[in-house]
Amino acid sequence: MSDLGTLTKSTVEAETELHESVVIGKRKPVSGVSVGDYLVNRLLDHGVEDIFGIPGDYVLSLYSKIEDSPIHLIGCTREDSAGFAADAYARIKGLGAACVTYAVGGFSIFNSIAGAYAEKSPVVVISGSPGRDEQRLHPLLHHRVRNFRTQEEMFRHICIASAVLDDADRAWQEIDRVLEAVVQYRRPGYIEIPRDMVNVIPEGVYHPMKTKLISDTDTLNEAVFEAARRLSEAENPCILAGVEIQRYGLQSKLIQMAEKMNIPVATTLLGKSVVAESHPLFAGVYEGAMGYEPITRFVEESDLVLVLGAFVSDLNLGIYTSKLEPSYCVYANGEMLQIGHHWFEGVLLSDFIDRLGDVDFHFEPRSMPSTPLAEPYSIQTDQPITVTRLMRRLNESIDRSNIVIADVGDALFASADLLIREQTEYMSPAYYASLGFAAPAALGCMIARPELRPVIIVGDGGFQMSATELSTMVQHKFTPIVILLDNQGYGTERLLHPGKNRFNDIHPWDYTELTKVFGGGRGYEIRTEGEFDTALHSAWEDTSGLSILHVHLEKDDWSDSVKRLAKALGEFV
Amino acid sequence: MSDLGTLTKSTVEAETELHESVVIGKRKPVSGVSVGDYLVNRLLDHGVEDIFGIPGDYVLSLYSKIEDSPIHLIGCTREDSAGFAADAYARIKGLGAACVTYAVGGFSIFNSIAGAYAEKSPVVVISGSPGRDEQRLHPLLHHRVRNFRTQEEMFRHICIASAVLDDADRAWQEIDRVLEAVVQYRRPGYIEIPRDMVNVIPEGVYHPMKTKLISDTDTLNEAVFEAARRLSEAENPCILAGVEIQRYGLQSKLIQMAEKMNIPVATTLLGKSVVAESHPLFAGVYEGAMGYEPITRFVEESDLVLVLGAFVSDLNLGIYTSKLEPSYCVYANGEMLQIGHHWFEGVLLSDFIDRLGDVDFHFEPRSMPSTPLAEPYSIQTDQPITVTRLMRRLNESIDRSNIVIADVGDALFASADLLIREQTEYMSPAYYASLGFAAPAALGCMIARPELRPVIIVGDGGFQMSATELSTMVQHKFTPIVILLDNQGYGTERLLHPGKNRFNDIHPWDYTELTKVFGGGRGYEIRTEGEFDTALHSAWEDTSGLSILHVHLEKDDWSDSVKRLAKALGEFV
Repeated sequence: MSDLGTLTKSTVEAETELHESVVIGKRKPVSGVSVGDYLVNRLLDHGVEDIFGIPGDYVLSLYSKIEDSPIHLIGCTREDSAGFAADAYARIKGLGAACVTYAVGGFSIFNSIAGAYAEKSPVVVISGSPGRDEQRLHPLLHHRVRNFRTQEEMFRHICIASAVLDDADRAWQEIDRVLEAVVQYRRPGYIEIPRDMVNVIPEGVYHPMKTKLISDTDTLNEAVFEAARRLSEAENPCILAGVEIQRYGLQSKLIQMAEKMNIPVATTLLGKSVVAESHPLFAGVYEGAMGYEPITRFVEESDLVLVLGAFVSDLNLGIYTSKLEPSYCVYANGEMLQIGHHWFEGVLLSDFIDRLGDVDFHFEPRSMPSTPLAEPYSIQTDQPITVTRLMRRLNESIDRSNIVIADVGDALFASADLLIREQTEYMSPAYYASLGFAAPAALGCMIARPELRPVIIVGDGGFQMSATELSTMVQHKFTPIVILLDNQGYGTERLLHPGKNRFNDIHPWDYTELTKVFGGGRGYEIRTEGEFDTALHSAWEDTSGLSILHVHLEKDDWSDSVKRLAKALGEFV
Repeated sequence: MSDLGTLTKSTVEAETELHESVVIGKRKPVSGVSVGDYLVNRLLDHGVEDIFGIPGDYVLSLYSKIEDSPIHLIGCTREDSAGFAADAYARIKGLGAACVTYAVGGFSIFNSIAGAYAEKSPVVVISGSPGRDEQRLHPLLHHRVRNFRTQEEMFRHICIASAVLDDADRAWQEIDRVLEAVVQYRRPGYIEIPRDMVNVIPEGVYHPMKTKLISDTDTLNEAVFEAARRLSEAENPCILAGVEIQRYGLQSKLIQMAEKMNIPVATTLLGKSVVAESHPLFAGVYEGAMGYEPITRFVEESDLVLVLGAFVSDLNLGIYTSKLEPSYCVYANGEMLQIGHHWFEGVLLSDFIDRLGDVDFHFEPRSMPSTPLAEPYSIQTDQPITVTRLMRRLNESIDRSNIVIADVGDALFASADLLIREQTEYMSPAYYASLGFAAPAALGCMIARPELRPVIIVGDGGFQMSATELSTMVQHKFTPIVILLDNQGYGTERLLHPGKNRFNDIHPWDYTELTKVFGGGRGYEIRTEGEFDTALHSAWEDTSGLSILHVHLEKDDWSDSVKRLAKALGEFV
């Protein structure tokens, strides 16, 4: 059992102002712009072209304003779906936004935003609220819960920054403060706008500054010097890359550094696909004892592991089974930098990787580990399909035009073995692990990158939670392929906690009939390898709409990964 | 515009210990019972026979314990549905419970619990969490958001009491403390149980006390004396009864008092059906200028209004259009008591109504107002159906064997006119107004009172949010009748905020196909009065399963109530 877990408390306790911020220039002075318009303009400046949400009476004026702007409003069936979609969009574009009404909207999106906080996704929640005069004169307005600040107070627990735009004199600045924090720290933010503030034009002129976060130079120098020294003493180092490499846009830098020094790169589960898995230096997805043994051995036998941009979380690193001793690690992410058993403060991950890339070494090639789906798949037509065999077959169809979005459970653990050829073409909630993420997240992906065709891998339990979001995909004429792993309930839990446990069984649906409900798409019923093969061919060719592949699995069909997970976790459950 | 709104701040700022609590006896001493068993036992003591929720790995041990107990686990498709179902169950039975896993479960239920807080429903949320040792040794466990207390801290904003059962020495007491507060104050509570605490048996013996809240005697006497004096000076008083009359179980007391003194009783919108609407003293649902004019006039022309157990909220009392001057009101609810312009503290609503019932007056009969659906309905077979005509026709079918559950929008406003013959056979989220309440709440009603057949009235926007919960009804072989008012979007919002507003249009579904997805029930497509009549007859007779009546309405079809609402609210939106 690793003790790395005990060293990382600070990674999630962190708040803003971890790093020093300096002014690097001025933006155009602002005057004569309404609060609502300024918000819209600044979102556009940050590359937000789409906002997800559901209108409600406290946010209608803002919705009208957005509708009249270049930003597209993407209506969802539920607010939590809008949150997941905005999260996925944010992971791809660098900022995402969800816009909801007061209370009934805001309270419905907490789970999605908590997930974005946990997994560092830069999403801003924009909520309407009662007008300032209404709050004063009519304290028992509908939707109100405890007091008018309750919603903001709750969001503060799961946001890096928040603001209520009830003061015209500060509204422009407050919008900038929240958006900058979200973008710089890749955590969610919250902006609340009373409905009578949307069209208020603040007086005066505001001179916004361009700022950026900087590293402390001396600390950076010392840390890079020490890391380089450790590299110089290493013989077979490897990099373990986490999801922050993608969040901070460091993929190219990282791979350049790896290529220059000839260091193999494994990724964590949450970080899967931050490195193109077709790259010759890609060593696999490391999951401790939960993962594929040759990869685990490769990483753990390295005499130096540069753990870059990773969360050392349980699922992410194989439920306490990771054997990465700090003595052999350089560990850097958005919040902390640790070498061996000591810490450095105030060093940016990007600066650290930048500077480490300047170091001049070239390591001897190592013999790379095999990959779990390396052996070719030969179909056994009449065999009942299993999740393991399904992934082998699917692996042959997935290509650069796809993005894989995995839900929780075996949808995640088994699909970790798929070979993802491009950077960031695999997405999952591998740390927060909220069932129901995949379908709405796929919507966000399709809006952000319509040229990619999503393959949604989801269990029946997670699918029932957010299946309605397929409706929005049909509405937008998207063509996702849903691979629905139906083991008639919460399969991972059956394995984690054996017993009678009928509560893990769920009511079966005729899932393919959803195409009729939503008015588009085609369904496939799959029980054998042959049927899966035929359906996959057909779905891949059918670009007319949604495809739902309803894969009937045995209740006791689990991937090897999830069996190893159960073994590791079982003592605690 | 009324100024009552400004007088009621305290009603939602209130916390526990509004009232004095006294010990009235002892319960059996407790020893040798595990924390999990004690929780189950105490829920049973409070009449909880069913718990709604979704299992997850941090709550599996507790789920197993509940499965082995007399309590039934009712699995839902989503946690927020479980919250709404538990809320509805609580409104009927006096305590409801939802059981969820850590973070992904807890954060998904906030909206439902906020609604329960706002509308005073006694629901307890039980959440699993990581074991104590895990929290200490492995700080980055999956599902974790910020720190291990984040979830509890957020629940405290919307709960009357909360506890984390991480200390065996206090676990029994803590369970009692939270459950008592929930039951006494009719607000939600939160109990978190680390998974390694479920089977821990605390040492020692615990001597639980029976307690009850009491009024301050002198204050009570003075308040009753003054209210009686005002009654003695009145000529045509009326009672305006709110939902707390039901929450505190005061229906019989209230109607006895009304009958004894011959005082007519109107109800608020949220309080609809706290008095059987077939009662000769029932005066209608009062909604200020938003309501049916004869009822509004009747209430506002009374020279004394006893406002009992009501929230003076905007939707509940017609969006600031209520003309109830404090000078002519006695206003008592669970948190406050006000006569004219002065206040009394420490008086229980039940004691106040009790004592007021002892007062000896008998008022002359008043001419009662007409009711909105009084005139008989004569069908116009080929006429397109409208929401107003639909309610007239539906009113003829609803009887004592039904419970009406109304969602938000015209589903609520138009259905307020239905005549509900029994107490508490109408349920709605008329204050918190969360779309999507109706279907899962109906599930809660069916579990709590299976002998009642629910009529679910819901718009298409709200239905898309929680339609999946019909699956659970099919699973349990329930026979609800869903009346789906399809105006192709968020209809009330179209009227509140006119303009282009395409965001109010939603993707249309073929709703009746859901019967095929869920494997049960029958659907009806309805466009005319004749088709509605036929479908209603058929659905009423068909007790084999779910009925979905898909009613196609014009986009610009609104009830008179919602038109009056838009007029009153329009200036703010």
